[in-house]
Amino acid sequence: MAVGLRDASAVRPTGDGTWSGAIEPGWDIAGNANGGYLLTIAARAMVEAAGRPDPVSVTAHFLAPGKPGPVTVEADVVRAGRRFVTASAVLRAADRPLVAALGSFTELGPSGGPERVDGTPPALPPPEDCVAVHATDTFPPPFMGRLDLRLHPEDAGFRDGTPSGEPLVRGWFRLADDEPVDTIALLLAVDAFPPTIFNARLPVAWTPTLELTAHVRARPAPGWLRCCFRTRFVTGGFLEEDGEVWDETGHLVGQSRQLALVPRGEG
Amino acid sequence: MAVGLRDASAVRPTGDGTWSGAIEPGWDIAGNANGGYLLTIAARAMVEAAGRPDPVSVTAHFLAPGKPGPVTVEADVVRAGRRFVTASAVLRAADRPLVAALGSFTELGPSGGPERVDGTPPALPPPEDCVAVHATDTFPPPFMGRLDLRLHPEDAGFRDGTPSGEPLVRGWFRLADDEPVDTIALLLAVDAFPPTIFNARLPVAWTPTLELTAHVRARPAPGWLRCCFRTRFVTGGFLEEDGEVWDETGHLVGQSRQLALVPRGEG
Repeated sequence: MAVGLRDASAVRPTGDGTWSGAIEPGWDIAGNANGGYLLTIAARAMVEAAGRPDPVSVTAHFLAPGKPGPVTVEADVVRAGRRFVTASAVLRAADRPLVAALGSFTELGPSGGPERVDGTPPALPPPEDCVAVHATDTFPPPFMGRLDLRLHPEDAGFRDGTPSGEPLVRGWFRLADDEPVDTIALLLAVDAFPPTIFNARLPVAWTPTLELTAHVRARPAPGWLRCCFRTRFVTGGFLEEDGEVWDETGHLVGQSRQLALVPRGEG
Repeated sequence: MAVGLRDASAVRPTGDGTWSGAIEPGWDIAGNANGGYLLTIAARAMVEAAGRPDPVSVTAHFLAPGKPGPVTVEADVVRAGRRFVTASAVLRAADRPLVAALGSFTELGPSGGPERVDGTPPALPPPEDCVAVHATDTFPPPFMGRLDLRLHPEDAGFRDGTPSGEPLVRGWFRLADDEPVDTIALLLAVDAFPPTIFNARLPVAWTPTLELTAHVRARPAPGWLRCCFRTRFVTGGFLEEDGEVWDETGHLVGQSRQLALVPRGEG
């Protein structure tokens, strides 16, 4: 049975700054839960600890792979300000730390300040003309069954062995069954697309994420999200992947950057 | 008497995961210590806790301004892996939290993996043809006396009321008195330049940093660092500032992104 993100990331307080939850089956890639999904579980506990509904900036360091089963989140408020509350969290499975997180939370609303936007949402064919990614037991991974992901046709060639040559992945995102995307679900959106490196024509098959930081600028309007992920620097044994997420009204709702490892053995 | 960064960021263990240090005078902007400088103090304690010399990815959330005086850092290892050690830290002055940090540390060396670099160091006139920023009691701030900062002439016009119109700041960085720049000093370099917003011709005079994440790709070679900071999105009451730091041998040694507040009252 399909479980929506809201239920799959739910946490219950167990007292003393600790919450319990579960890594649900079906959110995995080759058996390991997607990192963005793990972060949404930690973020739900942080939101509750902080008493603020919206993450503004959240960073996760990924420490160990997550398998389906019970988890606990220890979430502590470091500082409660008038507008922002900063909290740290560690997500654990059987006392093994899987994710360490640090974030600031607020209640997002209209800003009223000056605006300047040097960028536009990625140009994408309509969702029905993009490449839908359907889940399989292996690749595409089961995790894709929880999402509705549509890749720009120019960026989808890696799937049949014809990568574009540009470490760029653009596409549409929404949750399965039209589940609304709140600001916590954005933490999943920024880690849900195939790695940019798949399009790079480099001898790299797997880039484990060390760290992911997501900034949330606004609550997304209902509907599809336009997403764009790009890598400029594969060097020093690392690569960054920069993401932008725009909503259907054309507003930038989030930015992300992750640092991933480029395994040495495959070069 | 001038104090170099190494001394000004030094910490001494006081047992039980706690280190003591001091915010030295002269590292301030209008009386408040520079955020990157505060982060170097926290990072020295994290490096000691982690037993690894080099930050790979470090995130700081800035909670309150720092004034000269004693500080403590509580640093905890969240997970010690074979290659990376992840640690959290809180820097406090008189029990008031100033900075919360989370980072992963390693010993950086040659990577041997595949490389792809879609970018170049910023083109800069030689340091002697750039605009040196000299410290004053007000603006430029005292903090600039700890550095040798040379701005690209095209990006220095904000100083006399002729901002370029582009939220871009490029320039050379080194520490005063030719103090070597290690990977911890890079955490200062990415927060040392004037805000990009100064060049944007927007009614914004002050953008307090909420969060800063720095990635370190390699230990910098001796000499000047070429730095470039750019803002693309001033929206939702926030702006991001993306930085790149290149060393004299032309290698990317670090990337940064910070999220800053765009005060509402000035729009």
